[in-house]
Amino acid sequence: MTEATIPALKIHGADNVSVVLTEGGLQPGARLDDGTELREAVPFGHKVALEDIPRDGVITRYGVTIGIASEDLPRGTWVNEHRMRLPEPPALDDLPPPAPQPAPPAPLEGYTFEGYRNADGSVGTRNILAISTSVQCVAGVVDHVVSRVQAELLPRYPNVDGVVALNHAYGCGVAINAPDAIIPIRTVQNLAKNPNFGGEVMVIGLGCEKLRPEWLLPEGDPSASVLTLQDPAHIGFAAMVDAILKQAEEHLERLNRRTRETCPASDLVVGVQCGGSDAFSGVTANPVIGCAADLIVRAGGSVMFSEVTEVRDAVHLLAPRCADKETSEALAREMAWYDAYLARGGADRSANTTPGNKAGGLSGIVEKSLGSVAKSGSSPLADVTGPGERISRKGLTFAATPAGDFVCGTLQLAAGMNVHIFSTGRGTPYNLPAAPTLKVVTNSALARRWFDLVDLDTGRVATGEATIETLGMELFQLILDTASGKRITAADRLGIVNDLVLFNPAPVT
Amino acid sequence: MTEATIPALKIHGADNVSVVLTEGGLQPGARLDDGTELREAVPFGHKVALEDIPRDGVITRYGVTIGIASEDLPRGTWVNEHRMRLPEPPALDDLPPPAPQPAPPAPLEGYTFEGYRNADGSVGTRNILAISTSVQCVAGVVDHVVSRVQAELLPRYPNVDGVVALNHAYGCGVAINAPDAIIPIRTVQNLAKNPNFGGEVMVIGLGCEKLRPEWLLPEGDPSASVLTLQDPAHIGFAAMVDAILKQAEEHLERLNRRTRETCPASDLVVGVQCGGSDAFSGVTANPVIGCAADLIVRAGGSVMFSEVTEVRDAVHLLAPRCADKETSEALAREMAWYDAYLARGGADRSANTTPGNKAGGLSGIVEKSLGSVAKSGSSPLADVTGPGERISRKGLTFAATPAGDFVCGTLQLAAGMNVHIFSTGRGTPYNLPAAPTLKVVTNSALARRWFDLVDLDTGRVATGEATIETLGMELFQLILDTASGKRITAADRLGIVNDLVLFNPAPVT
Ligand SMILES: [Ca+2]
Ligand SMILES: [Ca+2]
Ligand SMILES: [Ca+2]
Ligand SMILES: [Ca+2]
Ligand SMILES: [Ca+2]
Repeated sequence: MTEATIPALKIHGADNVSVVLTEGGLQPGARLDDGTELREAVPFGHKVALEDIPRDGVITRYGVTIGIASEDLPRGTWVNEHRMRLPEPPALDDLPPPAPQPAPPAPLEGYTFEGYRNADGSVGTRNILAISTSVQCVAGVVDHVVSRVQAELLPRYPNVDGVVALNHAYGCGVAINAPDAIIPIRTVQNLAKNPNFGGEVMVIGLGCEKLRPEWLLPEGDPSASVLTLQDPAHIGFAAMVDAILKQAEEHLERLNRRTRETCPASDLVVGVQCGGSDAFSGVTANPVIGCAADLIVRAGGSVMFSEVTEVRDAVHLLAPRCADKETSEALAREMAWYDAYLARGGADRSANTTPGNKAGGLSGIVEKSLGSVAKSGSSPLADVTGPGERISRKGLTFAATPAGDFVCGTLQLAAGMNVHIFSTGRGTPYNLPAAPTLKVVTNSALARRWFDLVDLDTGRVATGEATIETLGMELFQLILDTASGKRITAADRLGIVNDLVLFNPAPVT
Repeated sequence: MTEATIPALKIHGADNVSVVLTEGGLQPGARLDDGTELREAVPFGHKVALEDIPRDGVITRYGVTIGIASEDLPRGTWVNEHRMRLPEPPALDDLPPPAPQPAPPAPLEGYTFEGYRNADGSVGTRNILAISTSVQCVAGVVDHVVSRVQAELLPRYPNVDGVVALNHAYGCGVAINAPDAIIPIRTVQNLAKNPNFGGEVMVIGLGCEKLRPEWLLPEGDPSASVLTLQDPAHIGFAAMVDAILKQAEEHLERLNRRTRETCPASDLVVGVQCGGSDAFSGVTANPVIGCAADLIVRAGGSVMFSEVTEVRDAVHLLAPRCADKETSEALAREMAWYDAYLARGGADRSANTTPGNKAGGLSGIVEKSLGSVAKSGSSPLADVTGPGERISRKGLTFAATPAGDFVCGTLQLAAGMNVHIFSTGRGTPYNLPAAPTLKVVTNSALARRWFDLVDLDTGRVATGEATIETLGMELFQLILDTASGKRITAADRLGIVNDLVLFNPAPVT
């Protein structure tokens, strides 16, 4: 069995584990390029001890402690979550101060895309009619209306890219005065203002709900409309539907008069997240996304990353990157809020990891976090926003959200995202209809299997066929082409549509 | 202004308020039939003081204290939520013991419906293919499959009534080991076993999610199937969809061989709830539903009512109706659990009421509760079940759920409901595709306006055109006809479809 030595992935000089890169895994006796001989079989993507790690010794990957050995782990042992425990999370009251920022890299100039300029200065990458809803009760009627708009109206408004129902499970049957209710409320309000909806706010309400339909109308916007199903003017279902269709046409008329114009890359607002991660997420897809994120920031654009439970264990690495003390404090505040939210429900950040993460070689939330934050690249952290808030600064923002894919994506839409980047290792047919969603996969096996579901294969980094930098530039270009509408994402081509999911940390009633 | 006296609604001899029955409300100077002269305008459905109520005096309706006057309320004053405060909720550690049950009314025999008998003894009122999902990630693909099944497969299986995706927002990105996670998990498990799905359990999972797809398979059921999108066998989207369609056909073949047979009314499992209530809910629709509930119980069937926050203030009235001490303790336990759940989020049971409730004349949760529990009729309370549990006894069960319409309906489906009764005063186009949903409205104005959206108008009780008893029997007959598939509900005729909403009191990650 011990023939030629086999390359394995060691990321940082201080690491005492490396990751098996051989598809199908390695058998006992296989010898890694550093001379380590495997004592047992180790699956693809999983970790091998490169030195004898004693019980209670630290397990180091990315140069950071990802776990404490719960048994002796001699060199060549399979290191997995059953053989280690998590270290304590970094303390939040003792974060390192913002470090002196290195001289920023040269601005990246001359990159543009074709977008829809909005009255508020934001830019849409799509020209979509969004129908906002104040309460779940109207969802069935709105779904019916959306089908009618698609079949009967859209053919007459060829410049409109589509119609989207902003249905959700909030609005009534909820504790609307609870302290945390502000989160779902501002999310619903801000969703309607996403740049891809062209400033046309069309609200359908019921009439008796707790979330008042008029709360969703932006102040001083004469084009915004609101209609409630309980309005005595509607006699029967057909009348209700006709009234909504009439309302929709007014918005469609205006949207249809819009055309794309050349916009600088600084008008991009890119939201990045990951879902269904594996051990390669942190070494292929996420660093490639981080590289593209740096390019967008250099071009003057906005990038947001999120997923609090995947940042919690890396917060001490992010704190020095904060642009100022205020941002660093906001970062600690969002982490502390989430710690308390989880504790209230009898959980902690370790609840983040999934069976798929573990099967894919991720031995706990610390290792997952270090791979997850790679998506943020290396730019200074310009701002931190709370869940459901709109981002307001150029550069890199940490938009604090849960890590669950649909909750995170919904909150990033509310934050103003006009292009979405999603990395996956295990594979998920995730798609948001409101913003083009590019799927970046971590390994070539998945890229081959889901050939029509993915947009970019970064598995080539692990095999040495490509570098993070070349793929980062490729992704940046893909983002511009997608923003321009020249490229349709894989999931949009297939017509996969996922629903929004609000984050409501307050009770339901 | 003071012409003839005007009838108003006083429910109990001890009440010191009555409700204005005149559409459009009453003007100052109007004289009620008890001689009370209005001191100010009082809207339709709102309350008038029938005697001088001093500041800190009790306001009594249904013979129960619904509030404490926060100012002097002289006879003829409009009594509303701004002029009163809530009393303390009944203590839970001091509930009255189960009272000796009155001799049960004569059994109701000879009532039947045409249903689909299942292998487990339950009976479906519809013959539906349900596609269960273990995680939100698959929802977009499953929605696509459902359209394909409807267009391509159902025409070949004429005995199958429809296909329903059991999509939800749970399964990953959640704290699956948190104490309260049991609620959404068992809900998803039990949804698949609803009698209207004919015992055919078809699960679509992703593969890496926390909620394992195989957890949704009933033990020892050889016909149950599970398929994951990440299965390496699926090369591309079309292969994935084809595999699901093939799976669906196996279930459709078996469902298509089923036929309706005559079943006793004791096979009914009726879930009742209300939404968009007004001051008439408690005097028209809900008592009519309570009367029908009593008939079902007399016929040996099962009825469940729910909505914890609408029962909390009436718990001292329900406790004596409990069949035994165990049931009474379970009732108190569910109330205490919900009190703690609300308190954890900074809320209490008063968060239940809506702007529509208040506009409709309901001055707080106590008054709303007293009207809400009228749906339970007068039968002994045979059992209390937790959210997401299946009911297991005949007779009346309190299935503890939140009051939010979609959450409650979803949990009642999981509890095994085969017919749903929904009362509304303000109006909501609520419909569950998995069980026929009869909409009972509290007032004739709404019945006229939403003529094609409602199934039964109980406003005739308030105007004296009908009695609670005659409408109760009418509703009972409507339930049997609907269960038999002879009558299609208003919302099913219109094709309104609402999504399920799970109750997840545990944190998301
Ligand atoms: Ca993630
Ligand atoms: Ca995620
Ligand atoms: Ca209710
Ligand atoms: Ca309800
Ligand atoms: Ca949907």
